[in-house]
Amino acid sequence: MRREDLLASPVEHIKIKPKMTVNELMLEFEKSGSFGAGRLAAACNIFEKMLRDEGCTIFLALAGAAVPAGLRTVIADLIRKRQIDALVTTAANMVHDFIEALGGHHYKGHWAADDVLLYQYHVYRIYDIFVPEEDFVKMDYHCAEMFTKIAEENAGKTLSSNELAWEMGKRLSDPNSILRAAYEEKVPIFMPALRDSEFGYIHWLHSQRNPQNTLKVDAFKEVGYIIEMFRKSPRNGMIVLGGGVPRNTVQHAAVTARKGIDYAIVLTMDRAETGGLSGSTLEETVSWGKLKKDASKIMVIGDMLITFPIIVAAVNERLGENYTRTPALTRIRSKIT
Amino acid sequence: MRREDLLASPVEHIKIKPKMTVNELMLEFEKSGSFGAGRLAAACNIFEKMLRDEGCTIFLALAGAAVPAGLRTVIADLIRKRQIDALVTTAANMVHDFIEALGGHHYKGHWAADDVLLYQYHVYRIYDIFVPEEDFVKMDYHCAEMFTKIAEENAGKTLSSNELAWEMGKRLSDPNSILRAAYEEKVPIFMPALRDSEFGYIHWLHSQRNPQNTLKVDAFKEVGYIIEMFRKSPRNGMIVLGGGVPRNTVQHAAVTARKGIDYAIVLTMDRAETGGLSGSTLEETVSWGKLKKDASKIMVIGDMLITFPIIVAAVNERLGENYTRTPALTRIRSKIT
Amino acid sequence: MRREDLLASPVEHIKIKPKMTVNELMLEFEKSGSFGAGRLAAACNIFEKMLRDEGCTIFLALAGAAVPAGLRTVIADLIRKRQIDALVTTAANMVHDFIEALGGHHYKGHWAADDVLLYQYHVYRIYDIFVPEEDFVKMDYHCAEMFTKIAEENAGKTLSSNELAWEMGKRLSDPNSILRAAYEEKVPIFMPALRDSEFGYIHWLHSQRNPQNTLKVDAFKEVGYIIEMFRKSPRNGMIVLGGGVPRNTVQHAAVTARKGIDYAIVLTMDRAETGGLSGSTLEETVSWGKLKKDASKIMVIGDMLITFPIIVAAVNERLGENYTRTPALTRIRSKIT
Amino acid sequence: MRREDLLASPVEHIKIKPKMTVNELMLEFEKSGSFGAGRLAAACNIFEKMLRDEGCTIFLALAGAAVPAGLRTVIADLIRKRQIDALVTTAANMVHDFIEALGGHHYKGHWAADDVLLYQYHVYRIYDIFVPEEDFVKMDYHCAEMFTKIAEENAGKTLSSNELAWEMGKRLSDPNSILRAAYEEKVPIFMPALRDSEFGYIHWLHSQRNPQNTLKVDAFKEVGYIIEMFRKSPRNGMIVLGGGVPRNTVQHAAVTARKGIDYAIVLTMDRAETGGLSGSTLEETVSWGKLKKDASKIMVIGDMLITFPIIVAAVNERLGENYTRTPALTRIRSKIT
Repeated sequence: MRREDLLASPVEHIKIKPKMTVNELMLEFEKSGSFGAGRLAAACNIFEKMLRDEGCTIFLALAGAAVPAGLRTVIADLIRKRQIDALVTTAANMVHDFIEALGGHHYKGHWAADDVLLYQYHVYRIYDIFVPEEDFVKMDYHCAEMFTKIAEENAGKTLSSNELAWEMGKRLSDPNSILRAAYEEKVPIFMPALRDSEFGYIHWLHSQRNPQNTLKVDAFKEVGYIIEMFRKSPRNGMIVLGGGVPRNTVQHAAVTARKGIDYAIVLTMDRAETGGLSGSTLEETVSWGKLKKDASKIMVIGDMLITFPIIVAAVNERLGENYTRTPALTRIRSKIT
Repeated sequence: MRREDLLASPVEHIKIKPKMTVNELMLEFEKSGSFGAGRLAAACNIFEKMLRDEGCTIFLALAGAAVPAGLRTVIADLIRKRQIDALVTTAANMVHDFIEALGGHHYKGHWAADDVLLYQYHVYRIYDIFVPEEDFVKMDYHCAEMFTKIAEENAGKTLSSNELAWEMGKRLSDPNSILRAAYEEKVPIFMPALRDSEFGYIHWLHSQRNPQNTLKVDAFKEVGYIIEMFRKSPRNGMIVLGGGVPRNTVQHAAVTARKGIDYAIVLTMDRAETGGLSGSTLEETVSWGKLKKDASKIMVIGDMLITFPIIVAAVNERLGENYTRTPALTRIRSKIT
Repeated sequence: MRREDLLASPVEHIKIKPKMTVNELMLEFEKSGSFGAGRLAAACNIFEKMLRDEGCTIFLALAGAAVPAGLRTVIADLIRKRQIDALVTTAANMVHDFIEALGGHHYKGHWAADDVLLYQYHVYRIYDIFVPEEDFVKMDYHCAEMFTKIAEENAGKTLSSNELAWEMGKRLSDPNSILRAAYEEKVPIFMPALRDSEFGYIHWLHSQRNPQNTLKVDAFKEVGYIIEMFRKSPRNGMIVLGGGVPRNTVQHAAVTARKGIDYAIVLTMDRAETGGLSGSTLEETVSWGKLKKDASKIMVIGDMLITFPIIVAAVNERLGENYTRTPALTRIRSKIT
Repeated sequence: MRREDLLASPVEHIKIKPKMTVNELMLEFEKSGSFGAGRLAAACNIFEKMLRDEGCTIFLALAGAAVPAGLRTVIADLIRKRQIDALVTTAANMVHDFIEALGGHHYKGHWAADDVLLYQYHVYRIYDIFVPEEDFVKMDYHCAEMFTKIAEENAGKTLSSNELAWEMGKRLSDPNSILRAAYEEKVPIFMPALRDSEFGYIHWLHSQRNPQNTLKVDAFKEVGYIIEMFRKSPRNGMIVLGGGVPRNTVQHAAVTARKGIDYAIVLTMDRAETGGLSGSTLEETVSWGKLKKDASKIMVIGDMLITFPIIVAAVNERLGENYTRTPALTRIRSKIT
């Protein structure tokens, strides 16, 4: 590399203009190109590329309390607009979606609340969000009954987590629900750690009452399905919010399918130094073959509650209101089984 | 609170002495009482308390690449000495234990390695550790065959992740293996996100070849077992390395069992602000009833590869070489089913 | 506090709309109220309050490589619009402002560049920014000569860092320069660690050549001036980008002036646990009397390159294009000496 | 690089043995070589190398509340044993050293204390440390008088921050004081942001009362001295606790002296992504010529209150009790002026 190549592109300073749109600000960030601003602008460009690539299947990996905190509509809208093709999530996020689908709520609280008082009041805290116990209890009983009905209708069958997700979505009427939207749009929701959530307790409740007719979920059944999605799709994109099991599940499916990911965005506060998967660099991901060496990729260190809505707003502004997307897997009429 | 109570205990400065033992240094840290040093000293005290409490059952929750990085022996020794009573882990850590049980290795590498070169060389990177692909491949085929044998011997049965762990441990001969040690000592290993690891691919391999005789693992079966452990045990302690699904699984079992945890140590680099479970404070955990309000608890922000061996060394120095522990659940002869 | 007060305000989910302005997105973040999104929305509200409070003097504390990375224009514009009343900064940021005022540039580079190659090419790296050595050298000689002229014109006098800043600004013609804008608008720039930057080397160069006529800067002279600003101003606001010496200088001036700060925004990636000032909570700041107990305050954990432009854009959208501000200290015609 | 070179050195698992010394644990960490454990072991090796290199001058850069938190004795002992040759520090750490030299104390408190109550009680908080206001007040008046005496004895002279440090050390009798130890051992203490601390207020107090006889400190005077140290010394080592201005001052002196640093240890929680100096990688430092390309260097992400005492304990164990060091600059009888 020649010296002049290193010094080819000056940092242009961010200029704040009146009534800037989110995308206009992102274009200023792109001109700066530096630090978090440059990375966030790059993430917008990569999400736009994914959406404009007609052969790309997009996996959204979701860990962290995104749904309680206010991303429920953003995600449901992405599903309804078919801007994502699969959701891989902690089961807890779907529990919280379910709670709201039954009319429950999350409340604006405070991170320095008196947790002993909250305990006495039967109010749970998620950082600065409060959730009343009764909304969980209501969900427990409603969902346990739902599990019984699902078990009855699927007698003799063992479900995968994604099949269970659709079974639940089918039975929820709230149009704002992620589970409902995914059911209607036929977007799979994978929950690789399904039992690690209130669904674990609910299943236990249900099984105590229905020992003969217990809902069966196979720990491994979904594996083949997600591998198949990667295989059939010409190209694959990954957007990670947080990290953890959902990020690993998507990346592992890619390498298993021998289809390195083509586009990757990771929005996280985790860092590489402790060796955990969540904070691992996308360069490291290349060594495994999980990500192609020439993939479009960026990791933005920051709170996804800030960064993800910005990306979605900026990119949808670029696409315009008339933009519609037909997922690659739908167009090529592949049958994922 | 009176002003003099706030000013009761001066910070005493850490003094480095010749040939200090790890515990001697921790006692100096306790005299300082400040920042990470104070927290680490507190963690030593809490682990000591857990071990000295004859009614306490100890759950070790493990996320992050602890086994590849060098904690395999520390954990296996804790199991063999019965200093932990259950391991809740990412499945990946058990995959890496399995790889070494077959004679494979992890290698000291570098975090700034050329990942494209590594990919070409079929060498995987975990931060600054290298793993050769052939050790994975060897494990894939060995383990897929093992799954077939386990399926044959358990025909008609559906296993839980902890039952599968013991089935694997039974078939591994390496005495340094965590899976082997847990099998021998009858310490359960829960893997709530079992499929999110090479085991997912291995099961898929195995199932392609044995469509009629596929190993069945139930996603929910372990839930009752871990709840039962919490219920039967007079008191419960939790040590978290990392966070993620393992931390959540332990905490959720506690609240489900209506038995708030009595002792808690969290060793992590995650922080509270993004609302994720991994970085949530132990105060927040109290609001849910997962942790008792008067529990002995501490969160140490730091790399567990540094902090955990220090705690184990310091506490074992305090206990002495003749210390032996009989787990509460063994003594009270409870049958966990 | 009653239970219903805890559950008074539900989290409303963020909704992405077509062509959203930055402020419209912040209003959605406010409805969520959670995690980083809630904190960033709160920061917008506090900056708006500061600006609308006619009795408030606003101190911007700046650490980190904001100027090389693209915030030069944002800061210069804030000065020209009189939306800040004092800048307390690392001297390095002013060095980089000076470099650009002389026609130098910072360049978009890469964080994984080959630093040995960069060294051979005489190109310096600041994370993902490249700076050619010749721009530093040019600045060194230009500024050393300027120091000589300033010394001549101020013979017998000893300057403070803020007086030196204006002397430099007076001699720079670039209207986009922060130093120039501050000189023209009579906004003081305090550099409490002045010598810890290229100015340290430049002064040394200059003094080697002018041993009889060396520019004298007093380490303490500015202290009285900033205390006086706090004293004279009815209310005081602080915006911290990064932390470090600039944050401490502003907070210390407040307590010294016996005028706790009324409004505080801290944008940083630093955290409290290690006990450093940069990451200390604004609650801790209250214990010292540096911040009033009922101050409007928020700390946003995130990259200031992302968060600060968002806040400036959102608040200026609220204020409208016709908004002008006359600083409190100008209106009350106080003489700060 | 050949594949077998990548796979040359297997991770050996950490083994906890009875009554391990700190150094024995570090040798286990070295065998692991991974993540934080590997980095901490590397830091021990580099500190040992620095000390065993008879031509090396060692700069300790100190930011963050190390002295209040319990590192005062560790640092004073390093000075008395001549294991460091210069201290570059935030002035605040010397303020806290001074407070204890007058019999004041820091107290073990709690990070979740009620800061409004603390304010009412005139107790200041530094994360989990409490400091009573009266210890500050006592120091204010004592030190202001001391400044007057120093001014009298240095009439007509302008001091540098390091000269002022020795003047203070000369007048403090506490043998445990860092300022005293540095004075006695002739180890310079540089405080590049001297005024950004209680010394700023104290100087202002003193100057109000002694307008005709004010202590003069030159902002730039120390620059030549530290450059000279780098120049005269055959090799130079840097240990950074925290980051900020002290790290920058050391690195900047190195490049100014055209003597890249030979050994570097950085102990910090800061990361590279936001572009700040504190978290910048030591690779980046090479691009500037501040660090030699083949320097022995390591950055350990962690709380320095944990990591630094470990390093000092392990290395002193290696050196043995009879080890004494004569600093290079003393041996070569260079006169730094």
